Amino acid sequence: MTHPHTQTCAVAGFLNLFGDNWTLLIIREALYGVTRFKEFRANTGIAKNLLSDRLVSLVAAGIFEKHDIGERGTRYAYHLTDKGRALETVLFAVQEWGNEHVYGHGREPVLLFDRRTGEPVGRVALLDRHDRPLQGADVAPRPGPGASRAAERRLARISG
Amino acid sequence: MTHPHTQTCAVAGFLNLFGDNWTLLIIREALYGVTRFKEFRANTGIAKNLLSDRLVSLVAAGIFEKHDIGERGTRYAYHLTDKGRALETVLFAVQEWGNEHVYGHGREPVLLFDRRTGEPVGRVALLDRHDRPLQGADVAPRPGPGASRAAERRLARISG
Repeated sequence: MTHPHTQTCAVAGFLNLFGDNWTLLIIREALYGVTRFKEFRANTGIAKNLLSDRLVSLVAAGIFEKHDIGERGTRYAYHLTDKGRALETVLFAVQEWGNEHVYGHGREPVLLFDRRTGEPVGRVALLDRHDRPLQGADVAPRPGPGASRAAERRLARISG
Repeated sequence: MTHPHTQTCAVAGFLNLFGDNWTLLIIREALYGVTRFKEFRANTGIAKNLLSDRLVSLVAAGIFEKHDIGERGTRYAYHLTDKGRALETVLFAVQEWGNEHVYGHGREPVLLFDRRTGEPVGRVALLDRHDRPLQGADVAPRPGPGASRAAERRLARISG
């Protein structure tokens, strides 16, 4: 990104890495098992120089590890780190939203299944500490230990 | 976006609306209850013309409804539609990832709490049809009814 967000906010921190039109497609491919430059390129349609830049940034940010596999033409393999693999939940949520609200029921490009039972999966949800799904209305944001003063004031107003 | 993705993919469909450095911050604010242009601007730091453009696109895409409230200076209020409110899960997942992997434990800017119990929330997860959390390794992508031929071929290779 040319102008990174400086706001103390997890969403802003995410956007500093993924706030463009392509990077989440690279992550989608990586979660599907893609590791090579050529495949990332073929499966997303991203321009060569842009893919190069993004992979450099994603390695620097600890999302990918770059391994020299010594093959001519496809010398490097890019493997997701734990930090990268943790984006899976974001991708599941994005895919669910896109299926329902961009494509709609009966027109979903990809559906997720439970390998163990062969059943379609349910949904993505925020869980309480006992793994029970929460409703949005049950959730309140509060300043965390890293909150800025400004965020504290704003959240105090929201939570009442 | 100047060059929308044409790939048949829910992630690409999401990026056509949210594949920039700002739009998810507008959604964050809307989920916190913000409805006015001036507040969106003050709380995100987005430039005036960019915010204007994004609100027009988000209304056109059915994410916001624009209501004329007849007040001088802040004439319109922007309310999330159901389609917009459904982005909550994406934002929860993004916030969880950012808290853990950008800021880290003990430095989270914002934490989410369960209003009913006052306890911190657990986590975001993909659930099976019986609301039980799934592991990523248990999840298999398969072509949906709207899959392109190319996607069908690729997914057949992935799922084995």
